[in-house]
Amino acid sequence: METLIKVDINKSPEEQADVLHNRWHPDIPMVAMVKPGAEFRIECIDWTGGQIGNNDSANDVRDVDLTKVHYLSGPVGVEGAEPGDLLVVDILDVGVLPDSAWGFNGLFAFENGGGFLTDHFPEAKKSCWDFHGIYTSSRHIPNVQFAGVMHPGLIGCLPSHELLAEWNKREAELVATDPERVPPLAALPYEDTALMGRLTGDAAAKAAKEGARTVPPREHGGNCDIKDLTKGSKVYFPVYVDGAGLSMGDIHFSQGDGEISFCGAIEMAGYLDLRVSLIKGGVAKYGIKNPVFKPSPLSPKYEDYLIFEGISVDEKGKQYYLDAHVSYKQACLNAIEYMKKFGYSGEQAYAILGTAPVQGHISGIVDIPNACATLWLPTGIFDFDINPDAEGPKLLVDPGVSLASTS
Amino acid sequence: METLIKVDINKSPEEQADVLHNRWHPDIPMVAMVKPGAEFRIECIDWTGGQIGNNDSANDVRDVDLTKVHYLSGPVGVEGAEPGDLLVVDILDVGVLPDSAWGFNGLFAFENGGGFLTDHFPEAKKSCWDFHGIYTSSRHIPNVQFAGVMHPGLIGCLPSHELLAEWNKREAELVATDPERVPPLAALPYEDTALMGRLTGDAAAKAAKEGARTVPPREHGGNCDIKDLTKGSKVYFPVYVDGAGLSMGDIHFSQGDGEISFCGAIEMAGYLDLRVSLIKGGVAKYGIKNPVFKPSPLSPKYEDYLIFEGISVDEKGKQYYLDAHVSYKQACLNAIEYMKKFGYSGEQAYAILGTAPVQGHISGIVDIPNACATLWLPTGIFDFDINPDAEGPKLLVDPGVSLASTS
Amino acid sequence: METLIKVDINKSPEEQADVLHNRWHPDIPMVAMVKPGAEFRIECIDWTGGQIGNNDSANDVRDVDLTKVHYLSGPVGVEGAEPGDLLVVDILDVGVLPDSAWGFNGLFAFENGGGFLTDHFPEAKKSCWDFHGIYTSSRHIPNVQFAGVMHPGLIGCLPSHELLAEWNKREAELVATDPERVPPLAALPYEDTALMGRLTGDAAAKAAKEGARTVPPREHGGNCDIKDLTKGSKVYFPVYVDGAGLSMGDIHFSQGDGEISFCGAIEMAGYLDLRVSLIKGGVAKYGIKNPVFKPSPLSPKYEDYLIFEGISVDEKGKQYYLDAHVSYKQACLNAIEYMKKFGYSGEQAYAILGTAPVQGHISGIVDIPNACATLWLPTGIFDFDINPDAEGPKLLVDPGVSLASTS
Amino acid sequence: METLIKVDINKSPEEQADVLHNRWHPDIPMVAMVKPGAEFRIECIDWTGGQIGNNDSANDVRDVDLTKVHYLSGPVGVEGAEPGDLLVVDILDVGVLPDSAWGFNGLFAFENGGGFLTDHFPEAKKSCWDFHGIYTSSRHIPNVQFAGVMHPGLIGCLPSHELLAEWNKREAELVATDPERVPPLAALPYEDTALMGRLTGDAAAKAAKEGARTVPPREHGGNCDIKDLTKGSKVYFPVYVDGAGLSMGDIHFSQGDGEISFCGAIEMAGYLDLRVSLIKGGVAKYGIKNPVFKPSPLSPKYEDYLIFEGISVDEKGKQYYLDAHVSYKQACLNAIEYMKKFGYSGEQAYAILGTAPVQGHISGIVDIPNACATLWLPTGIFDFDINPDAEGPKLLVDPGVSLASTS
Repeated sequence: METLIKVDINKSPEEQADVLHNRWHPDIPMVAMVKPGAEFRIECIDWTGGQIGNNDSANDVRDVDLTKVHYLSGPVGVEGAEPGDLLVVDILDVGVLPDSAWGFNGLFAFENGGGFLTDHFPEAKKSCWDFHGIYTSSRHIPNVQFAGVMHPGLIGCLPSHELLAEWNKREAELVATDPERVPPLAALPYEDTALMGRLTGDAAAKAAKEGARTVPPREHGGNCDIKDLTKGSKVYFPVYVDGAGLSMGDIHFSQGDGEISFCGAIEMAGYLDLRVSLIKGGVAKYGIKNPVFKPSPLSPKYEDYLIFEGISVDEKGKQYYLDAHVSYKQACLNAIEYMKKFGYSGEQAYAILGTAPVQGHISGIVDIPNACATLWLPTGIFDFDINPDAEGPKLLVDPGVSLASTS
Repeated sequence: METLIKVDINKSPEEQADVLHNRWHPDIPMVAMVKPGAEFRIECIDWTGGQIGNNDSANDVRDVDLTKVHYLSGPVGVEGAEPGDLLVVDILDVGVLPDSAWGFNGLFAFENGGGFLTDHFPEAKKSCWDFHGIYTSSRHIPNVQFAGVMHPGLIGCLPSHELLAEWNKREAELVATDPERVPPLAALPYEDTALMGRLTGDAAAKAAKEGARTVPPREHGGNCDIKDLTKGSKVYFPVYVDGAGLSMGDIHFSQGDGEISFCGAIEMAGYLDLRVSLIKGGVAKYGIKNPVFKPSPLSPKYEDYLIFEGISVDEKGKQYYLDAHVSYKQACLNAIEYMKKFGYSGEQAYAILGTAPVQGHISGIVDIPNACATLWLPTGIFDFDINPDAEGPKLLVDPGVSLASTS
Repeated sequence: METLIKVDINKSPEEQADVLHNRWHPDIPMVAMVKPGAEFRIECIDWTGGQIGNNDSANDVRDVDLTKVHYLSGPVGVEGAEPGDLLVVDILDVGVLPDSAWGFNGLFAFENGGGFLTDHFPEAKKSCWDFHGIYTSSRHIPNVQFAGVMHPGLIGCLPSHELLAEWNKREAELVATDPERVPPLAALPYEDTALMGRLTGDAAAKAAKEGARTVPPREHGGNCDIKDLTKGSKVYFPVYVDGAGLSMGDIHFSQGDGEISFCGAIEMAGYLDLRVSLIKGGVAKYGIKNPVFKPSPLSPKYEDYLIFEGISVDEKGKQYYLDAHVSYKQACLNAIEYMKKFGYSGEQAYAILGTAPVQGHISGIVDIPNACATLWLPTGIFDFDINPDAEGPKLLVDPGVSLASTS
Repeated sequence: METLIKVDINKSPEEQADVLHNRWHPDIPMVAMVKPGAEFRIECIDWTGGQIGNNDSANDVRDVDLTKVHYLSGPVGVEGAEPGDLLVVDILDVGVLPDSAWGFNGLFAFENGGGFLTDHFPEAKKSCWDFHGIYTSSRHIPNVQFAGVMHPGLIGCLPSHELLAEWNKREAELVATDPERVPPLAALPYEDTALMGRLTGDAAAKAAKEGARTVPPREHGGNCDIKDLTKGSKVYFPVYVDGAGLSMGDIHFSQGDGEISFCGAIEMAGYLDLRVSLIKGGVAKYGIKNPVFKPSPLSPKYEDYLIFEGISVDEKGKQYYLDAHVSYKQACLNAIEYMKKFGYSGEQAYAILGTAPVQGHISGIVDIPNACATLWLPTGIFDFDINPDAEGPKLLVDPGVSLASTS
């Protein structure tokens, strides 16, 4: 398989602007053109572009510059692709780069964006994960090992000018409702750290001012952080510009539903092997707005779960109306309290929910006023029996290990 | 297995007050006492207490009196159970009552509570479902058949007086924020239609005034509508009163994650075979707030899915902040648009999402401002190939069939 | 669903000859005719016709009259079915009869047919199994519980005269190679205990002389003892006579691949809910010789197995040539030795292999001279951890319990 | 991960005798020593040592020298391993070598060993398979694509002198029963082509005379051809010599149960990532004779199968006694006949059974005189619907493609 895009994890992203970009904009030139049916490899740097080290200090997590992240490899053009088509992408394989068989998970500081449970875990923390073939384990979290579901956190086609304008408009309107909020309600365009790929000069400067940030998922896919886009899956992406312009990055070795600790997956550099084809006019034919996908026949089979319920009453007893966000947060907090009884710190339990292949289900969404969400914790990731029994939990987790902290 | 509670589907719930109740209150007397380790059968009427008929008119769905629903069988007392214990319930079997091998699904009218997508589907509609052993199909929705995951929509232990007071307080506070809203923000106590089981006289009248409605899931479980509480699963319920007081009802033949069309499952009368035991002091030992459960080894295996993404931008383009509710709604609407391309009406597609074993996953919950949810549609429930291909969809759904409407 | 055939487990099979037969013969009259598309229930007595009791003595197993077994319910005729068609049978449900929620497993004495490992376990033994909804456990085998995969051990269509003649010829030729062997090489026609359904007089007497015994599986299906023919599966049977003539019986609550202890499943009385349809001329269209089937979406999910290999060298060290029978026997013996280390008797371990949903795989069949077979033991059926670890096995099985013996 | 053994696929095996051997003998020196807990990579050449080319002629398959095959990488010594221990091997990963992303499947000629169905397919044929990430497809077999289950066909520890002597004795005795048979009943030691690793001089010459051929599986594992030993699985091997001496090779990209066409898998060069540890005295502690293993959580999920039954009556109508080998052969022939109705040649269908992840189950093994075996064909490997329907099969297979033949 031909490697269409090569990266160098020892160089800065800025030095590799010929194949990388960190904003969404229709004017970014294609890095390469392929024919429908082509199979090719794309290498990607990790989402922070090398800001995080394999060490025992969380200073780097604390200090990450979040305007300089999500460096995407691409865009790759597909011959014949036109707006309104569906670009069919077979994710044939996802893998680790040589000499880079490790990943990291970060709990971001409240001041730096925080995470799903940042009210409970406001400090920067880090865990480093070693890869052992299909498995991973961390020196910062004992008694846990699991099979990864490697996937790109971020993948999608370039937006059209119209779609980009719509994104910028609606997100600016949201920010305007509370412009001083920390963290902000949305990440608006920010030209200073924009890397616009092969676009240069005035065109680049103009595009940098309006290029959409890569943080959220949007109609084109983007930063969906869906663990199920793993090797063997097939995705149907809407096409908005001639050539489609497929870009990708933010590869994860493993992640739970929700990527709940924000930098919540096990983040890594890696590669994707892809095959592309087209369904001409597929957007209208199938009534597609957001990407549609099919799962892999090769996903890890964890069949035994301990499942935690959460309802839309927050931890202070406040009642919300059918709010699945609050419900899922409660299910996560319930799972964390449970794991603590076996000897994990709260932060370790939180990191497990982010990194392990937990499932998050929307279980009840109509029974006013409480939405019900469930967090599915696979019991097989622990090297001890974590099920309840009549005798109560024993402190089975090896003591004396903790997440990396700041100094 | 001994049948501890028998019901008569031809009698009204009020005639069976010795074994039924429709409010949660700690003073409701136990219907029977069992020892830990006991196995027994509990029969349940359907959640409307027989208000819906197996016919082709949705008038009954339109006219349902929602204050007279969720008739629960119980409470069953367990010897030795005390507040702070965990009641372990093995759901050994769930089944259909003789001469009642059918169920119904209703889209509620906007005026009568509506459903998840009531803005799009404001009228009362109904589909009736025949059971064929483990499978079900509907004369109102062609080309679909699937294996059921029978489960109680509603099960839990009686609340203590303190917990009940907390429920009533927080829900009243929510309603107070918009007291005139239709539908209301929550269903507050309503004494007129309260059925308080074996509680009589003044005690019953007093309890009826404060008894919690059965609509939402709460800390004790309750109306969780979790399809995975199917035969073979095991649930750990917090105990709040001496004897625990386990009650249950609202049995579903099948349901998708979210029970999205409100009366969204295939509703039926049926029975539950249960085994109960205790973990003394388990609430504190395991840090339990809401019920925890383990899935069944005998759930239907649908491995091939078509998965629809949704983000927290609503159908009018309005941007929400990390709102999984909006995201899941968008994923559902996306799936409905897709199914319509094959010949289903929007209402039929909506009913499929409510009744079939679809999954709803919280996929991304931290990437501001868009939450991402996914709706997993099992392709094997259709008798044609519903996957996208280069030629576009064909109208494969048998024409001329529609949901039952009002007259 | 209409019950087409009712049985009475308190009456002898001979008293129910209007709906039962225990030989295969084309002249047996149909018990009922149904149209293609029909759904109906068939009740079946247990395979011994009530010879085995729910007690703690194996005398009844020792004394079973094996010429009086496999009483089949049927035959059911299907309108329009002709030789050369395929009869499509949807097994919609399989269940237990009221007041009969138990089953038995027998190790047959060597003198009475023995079983797969009769050289090692020559004595008659019995275990009785209680049903708890989808689960079963036995008072004779501690620390084991599993979900059943209820299925008919025996189901198929009536043979034609030509096919019956072929069966009788080839089996007689086999017996003739060693006519005095105990147990015999095959069970030839035996008129004395033949129950020929509604066939009477001379016709019955003649048919009894040539009616094929029900012991082996044959081209039409018959006694396949395939655990995967469970509720939700779909079978395509060749049709040999006008009306097809579908008969069935020998229902099992659970069984491992191979039904290795002969009466190796958990045997029970029960019912089957079926739907029938036809593929006209399907035998030639699809090149069918033996039945073809599709598995159920609702089979128990045991994903964690301990897998034992066996090769075609017997326990005395004798080398066989690519003999999968010897290989599977060795894999079974290996599993039994392993389970004994945890405290089971050999007989208990043998009974576990017969009754639990173990899998038997043909793993290598071409590497001369050793075939390789594997026995997959689901670890989740035990209430302790049966995996190997560095410390070695502990005697975790409750002592003092044994199979029922003869007196 | 350190690469402990590197191979060069462009060199002959004989040139790499420092890391390869093709006989089992206790005197072969260790290539390297590792500590318990070590993780390392082992590269392997394909089983024929490069005799087969990626082309459209089967001449190379016809002419393979079967005494020069199964070149194993190793043996790897484990510090502290002693006879009677269990060597625990975690197969962490299995992969393809760079520049070698293809594999082959051969039907061997009857004169050269044949295969499971050599009576029906006596000529040498070949199919070449391209790898597309986790998937594979062949230019010689249209309309089929599937996810691989990469695994070592051959892996095990060195035998002791005593065990080797036992192997040689029993296999010689088998050959002696029919010494002129073609193909022979077993492959006895053959010194001319023996490659004895780092053993040299007289010691090598002596060992070559008695070294066991690698063809069959034996007590130590060896050529088990078990597809389930894939990445993520864990194997417990008996240890017979100090240091254990683990050797491996014959890597398959995919294979069906039984590896039925002999060179039946998709054969390839590749690598294994392993982790080793010890259970001291584990052979006696757990009563182990043959290896025991646990499956991977990451196996391809094919849930929909078409299942073919076979009984122990051969294709000429001859009755065998409980012969699972004949039964499985019949099930395979039944599947081949079925696939031919859709347009495959018999040889293509045969190759599909060898290469695709079909399952072979021993379904009934006690119902005299017929054993029953089942062949499970995953329907999802075809790009058309291969299920039966009322209209009969259509010729959906692309015409004009055939296996590579000899010239």
